[in-house]
Amino acid sequence: MTETIAPARGRRGSYAKSEATRQAILDAALEVFSQSGYRAGSLRDIAQRVDMSEAGLLHHFRNKSALLEAVLELRDEQARALVPIESGDGVELLRGLVGLAEYNASIPGVVELFTTLSAEATAPDHPAHAYFLRRYEYTRRNIERAFRDLRDRGLLRHGMTPRRGAVIMVALMDGLQVQWLLHRDILDMAEELRAVFSTFVDIDWNAAGTDAVPESVPA
Amino acid sequence: MTETIAPARGRRGSYAKSEATRQAILDAALEVFSQSGYRAGSLRDIAQRVDMSEAGLLHHFRNKSALLEAVLELRDEQARALVPIESGDGVELLRGLVGLAEYNASIPGVVELFTTLSAEATAPDHPAHAYFLRRYEYTRRNIERAFRDLRDRGLLRHGMTPRRGAVIMVALMDGLQVQWLLHRDILDMAEELRAVFSTFVDIDWNAAGTDAVPESVPA
Repeated sequence: MTETIAPARGRRGSYAKSEATRQAILDAALEVFSQSGYRAGSLRDIAQRVDMSEAGLLHHFRNKSALLEAVLELRDEQARALVPIESGDGVELLRGLVGLAEYNASIPGVVELFTTLSAEATAPDHPAHAYFLRRYEYTRRNIERAFRDLRDRGLLRHGMTPRRGAVIMVALMDGLQVQWLLHRDILDMAEELRAVFSTFVDIDWNAAGTDAVPESVPA
Repeated sequence: MTETIAPARGRRGSYAKSEATRQAILDAALEVFSQSGYRAGSLRDIAQRVDMSEAGLLHHFRNKSALLEAVLELRDEQARALVPIESGDGVELLRGLVGLAEYNASIPGVVELFTTLSAEATAPDHPAHAYFLRRYEYTRRNIERAFRDLRDRGLLRHGMTPRRGAVIMVALMDGLQVQWLLHRDILDMAEELRAVFSTFVDIDWNAAGTDAVPESVPA
């Protein structure tokens, strides 16, 4: 489902070196976009952080929106390290989503980037529109599968359907981020998620213990 | 709580005429911002729609962000006609929120404007930051009050607290809008809201009938 963006190899660089450079650019771009936003974040600023010229950077990513897309895919990979989204195990998935919310609370710049971009990208002509269409479909499909697992294990309450559970879960996570960004001091995203999950899933959170939340995630 | 923006009166115009002009500008601005977004929507375009110069428009609103704020307040007034947000009656409020979601599905441009702005405005230096801080506090406070009413009437399930109900309700509505803007064909915001409300409130939706949704709203 995910389109890959092949790295454009520097003419003289080896493949390994090109990969390392590409990774360094992505890390810098995530930093810059998270701090300044996508529109205001400049390629020049990103290039400077990795000691390159803007032209050199464009050997690796053909333009700003290709770079943005690669940054978003990178973040998704990092998130997948926290949330076993494709496992189909409903309990593990819900615990993972709570863990992700806890982790997200430590990276407000990235949350701000995703929140703003996903709103802007609802416009069909936005460079990240196709990415977000795919991302929402992928996320809902996998959460729906996990909810079918919960239903089959008799853990789903009140006739909540797997499809609806998926739509609602994604909506909640998105919506909580907006409120949290505005009022960080009074809102704990993970706590709110855990509470609302409990209203329609019969799950024992305490049994999860702290092992549901990985100690560290890939930087 | 709401700061009022006093209309700057044209030097020769009567108060009534100035008010009518102000209202026409607001209607045009809502149209332009909803179609083009806040950043891309220009004062020149808005002024043209009401047969004024940009300088003439600035007699009524001191700058673009003051105009935006007035547009947002206008939309909120229109929404209050659908949702009895300050009534404190929990059942009426939930029905009103479902009705608002139905109405919003008929005005995607406005939904897009609010969704994008509320995300952008999480940045403290955004011109609408203070507006959204106030708006979220106001909305949560009133929904919390309505949830206390539901609790007192024995309609709240599962130990859902009024405060948490308010946070979750707002998050759901915001989050559903993003998914709906991306995938309008597969998602019915009002249906999803009604279903999730039912998981934590013991409310008979059928008893509401169609009278819960006003036939028309102020234009």
